[in-house]
Amino acid sequence: MLTKKELEDFCADAGKNYLPHISIDCVVFGFHEGVMKVLVLETKNKDEWYLPGGFLLKKEPIETAANRILKERTGLDKIFLQQFHVFGDPERSKEHFDMYKDMLPANENWFTNRFLTIGYYALVDFYGTTLVQDQFGGLGTWRALDDLPELRLDHALILKTALDTLRLQLNYQPIGYNLMPKEFTMPELQKLYETILDKKLDRRNFQRRMLGFGILTKSEHLRKGGAHKAPYLYSFDLENYEAALKEGFKGGW
Amino acid sequence: MLTKKELEDFCADAGKNYLPHISIDCVVFGFHEGVMKVLVLETKNKDEWYLPGGFLLKKEPIETAANRILKERTGLDKIFLQQFHVFGDPERSKEHFDMYKDMLPANENWFTNRFLTIGYYALVDFYGTTLVQDQFGGLGTWRALDDLPELRLDHALILKTALDTLRLQLNYQPIGYNLMPKEFTMPELQKLYETILDKKLDRRNFQRRMLGFGILTKSEHLRKGGAHKAPYLYSFDLENYEAALKEGFKGGW
Repeated sequence: MLTKKELEDFCADAGKNYLPHISIDCVVFGFHEGVMKVLVLETKNKDEWYLPGGFLLKKEPIETAANRILKERTGLDKIFLQQFHVFGDPERSKEHFDMYKDMLPANENWFTNRFLTIGYYALVDFYGTTLVQDQFGGLGTWRALDDLPELRLDHALILKTALDTLRLQLNYQPIGYNLMPKEFTMPELQKLYETILDKKLDRRNFQRRMLGFGILTKSEHLRKGGAHKAPYLYSFDLENYEAALKEGFKGGW
Repeated sequence: MLTKKELEDFCADAGKNYLPHISIDCVVFGFHEGVMKVLVLETKNKDEWYLPGGFLLKKEPIETAANRILKERTGLDKIFLQQFHVFGDPERSKEHFDMYKDMLPANENWFTNRFLTIGYYALVDFYGTTLVQDQFGGLGTWRALDDLPELRLDHALILKTALDTLRLQLNYQPIGYNLMPKEFTMPELQKLYETILDKKLDRRNFQRRMLGFGILTKSEHLRKGGAHKAPYLYSFDLENYEAALKEGFKGGW
């Protein structure tokens, strides 16, 4: 929660810079070696948790805004964010209304307005990412999906909707190019799917279906070392991968 | 295009009633017996074509607004509209800016503002639908996809994005409950898919895949009459259909 002074400072400029009634919130899923986390922001006073979000500059394209906001609030840069849903419940920011309504008169108070928020999501490798403090002294943290703090406003709903969207997306679009090493085994790729879906998949069905999508190239050499029979290595066929991103899988209609 | 008087009348109330900077546009695809059309709106002077759209009341949920707007502008009621994308290019309504900027000073002129528009789409049976005039004297028409007038603003992009979304949706969700008779043959259902996708599908693959989704029930009786061998009749298994709408096809992961 902002202090009265911080609120006054923010509101003095907010109306000049930002389009009213619209915000953007980002759900960044992080994957690394079989572990999936989500990026959440703890406020300076360590009393509140949010998804990283912010407001749209008056003449700014919304995709540019999503990337700027994520960078300003967490330090993450050049992330491919996908728009997935607008949350437009008139009561969705009531918590902020109640929190701030007595600090400033309504006509000077940014947070007594109604806000629609545009949700963006991404799936990145969180290994080696560096998170920085935002302008309010908040700091981002990667938290496991089963170890999330309670999120304010409707941010738990936004997170759940993003996760549902990501899981549905696995049925019609490829995933993993930015998450897997250049060459990987089929069990390593399966682990990515199992982690996102939070369930075990049948090994043979997975392999058959994945090969059927036509987005993998089998390497000529096997992985060396290890006690077991050396497994085949695969890489993504980028041309087919990009085409499937645009048009959905060939396994489609 | 509105006259100066019509613009003044509209702007006098718009700022009081509507949330600024946000609009909603609806893409309604109509299907009937192998023909697919889209609902477009011709203005009173018959000089401009738009998708049916409008603005969000200050305290109105966005889904309610989408339905109200579609009803007010075309007469279509109780349509299941799905949100699919926000269009946020800062220049997307420049055409309206140029059209209206000299008629009223900027501070009284609704149309000199930037608007983000939330796109909603639906697929309905257009047979028997009754279209009515909107408050500006415009009238909706069902037009074939290959016989569309030139749409104003970015409405051609909105329509194309909706069509891409609908086609992608065929890969992971069921479709057709509100479009097919209670009992139908496999070729009739295939015709729906072919019409939406605008391409021929293989008869045997279609049948195998469609049955694999587990959303069809085979009827005990065959269709009577006709010169050919009587075809099997199917109906949708509503329980499985609803589940697949929510979670995607079982054929998924």
